[in-house]
Amino acid sequence: MTRWIAADWGTSRLRLWAMADGVVVDSAVSEDGMGGLAPDGFEPAFLSAAQRMLPFAGRVPVLICGMAGARTGWHEVAYGPVPGPPLHPPERVPAGDPRLEVRILPGLAQSDPPDVMRGEETQIAGLVASDPGFDGVLCLPGTHTKWVRVAGGRVLAFRTVMTGELFALLATRSTLSAFAAEGWDDPAFDAAMRQGLDRPGGLTGDLFAIRAGGLLRGDPPGAARARLSGLLIGAEVAAMRDLWPGQPVTLLGDAGLAALYHRALTMAGLAAGTTDGTALTLAGLIAARAQFARDTA
Amino acid sequence: MTRWIAADWGTSRLRLWAMADGVVVDSAVSEDGMGGLAPDGFEPAFLSAAQRMLPFAGRVPVLICGMAGARTGWHEVAYGPVPGPPLHPPERVPAGDPRLEVRILPGLAQSDPPDVMRGEETQIAGLVASDPGFDGVLCLPGTHTKWVRVAGGRVLAFRTVMTGELFALLATRSTLSAFAAEGWDDPAFDAAMRQGLDRPGGLTGDLFAIRAGGLLRGDPPGAARARLSGLLIGAEVAAMRDLWPGQPVTLLGDAGLAALYHRALTMAGLAAGTTDGTALTLAGLIAARAQFARDTA
Repeated sequence: MTRWIAADWGTSRLRLWAMADGVVVDSAVSEDGMGGLAPDGFEPAFLSAAQRMLPFAGRVPVLICGMAGARTGWHEVAYGPVPGPPLHPPERVPAGDPRLEVRILPGLAQSDPPDVMRGEETQIAGLVASDPGFDGVLCLPGTHTKWVRVAGGRVLAFRTVMTGELFALLATRSTLSAFAAEGWDDPAFDAAMRQGLDRPGGLTGDLFAIRAGGLLRGDPPGAARARLSGLLIGAEVAAMRDLWPGQPVTLLGDAGLAALYHRALTMAGLAAGTTDGTALTLAGLIAARAQFARDTA
Repeated sequence: MTRWIAADWGTSRLRLWAMADGVVVDSAVSEDGMGGLAPDGFEPAFLSAAQRMLPFAGRVPVLICGMAGARTGWHEVAYGPVPGPPLHPPERVPAGDPRLEVRILPGLAQSDPPDVMRGEETQIAGLVASDPGFDGVLCLPGTHTKWVRVAGGRVLAFRTVMTGELFALLATRSTLSAFAAEGWDDPAFDAAMRQGLDRPGGLTGDLFAIRAGGLLRGDPPGAARARLSGLLIGAEVAAMRDLWPGQPVTLLGDAGLAALYHRALTMAGLAAGTTDGTALTLAGLIAARAQFARDTA
């Protein structure tokens, strides 16, 4: 029987795990991401995705991390401060269905330079739960890639880089689009990544060559697209390497994107272990449930 | 009486001058830019904008520079090579109206790194016509800003930087849009520009702080928008300064954008004279008409 439900509600996806005695007894994934929902759409979306996990009678505690706690999410939850621990007490969310006892975990905010995260702090908590002595940098690739300096179980500082969003904007909505719409080419990615690593400051000046290469040499779209990705990721890795020099980097990620970052980190001479991001999210939610049991009983 | 018509046909605008004995006798501006026209729309758009300049009978030579010669323009015209002179013989364009004798000037192409320009070469020719000994770098701000190394009347090398397009994409179509939609703040521009100049490689990592500053501190949209512009222009100027170190820079431009670049160039310690861009376009078209009189008689 489900004792509680762990949930990761991001911009594009809702992931659910039904938990009983520390074991996952059921799981579900819904495409009802936070990005497509109005505030009054969250509870119906949750009920629809969690239907078979809910009891016939009684209440089930639900612990959510991620963008559901943003200003435009289900219910705005304050941020915890950085430097500080990854986890902070979850906040109760008013729900109409009497079976739901919903709480959302706070994200983290840093004041200088200003930065925010929602969801990644739970993955960090999952990592720290399994490796309390972790001392290094975490890289969490995504639309907004996070780079996080972690030591002693605490988040010391972090930076968000908009590489994924820039890639999508440039590949689909810019004058490069006609030349970089689809396909892929590994050698073109590697060459561009090396260029981005060596000369990150030249990024905006290097982008237009993708269009000109298409016009003048007929560069195939796959090479152009890979080149765009390589320039962006190379420049990102170079900037982050200079920010925390000498720190080992651990990649957290499931998708193909983590493989691209792995190539870049290796080329930059940074040791890069890769850890499964989804497993860490669940581990972090379990850690939070244990840590805040008093508050959520 | 109009002896010939000079035209600058860019992506967003068509500019016309009716010429007689080296003097402008009439001028017109149309919003029928190349970007909004299909190939068969150019001649009607031209006739509409040039109506009062056309003779009742006989032919009038028309000399056009700019994007009208692009692949998706009126008629594709080949590029001249770089290094080389800015001007190359114009190509005849088939026109239906018997009064029109249309020619389009070639743009310039560079093979390594690949780059192209259409229209700016005519402004460069205008500058060289009035200052044949010019030896330095030209900066032509725009959606795609051009940086051009010119000496001995020749274009030695150039680079296109997509700063203007990146600014528009990020300010209107990204997760920064809600925080940088409108307004302006000079001190925020200066501070961000200094940051971009000092650390151009950090650009993609610095952008997200604009969103976070809006979320956490309620930074006003004007400051965020100016900050976005400052980071992009600062990073651009830093990269170009490193590309041609020690070269004086001359700005070509009419709009407010040139003033922002002037601030950045001054802060970067680069001498920056400013010359009116539209006047140079006309001067370049007049120089081209004189140079290729044999071909256009």
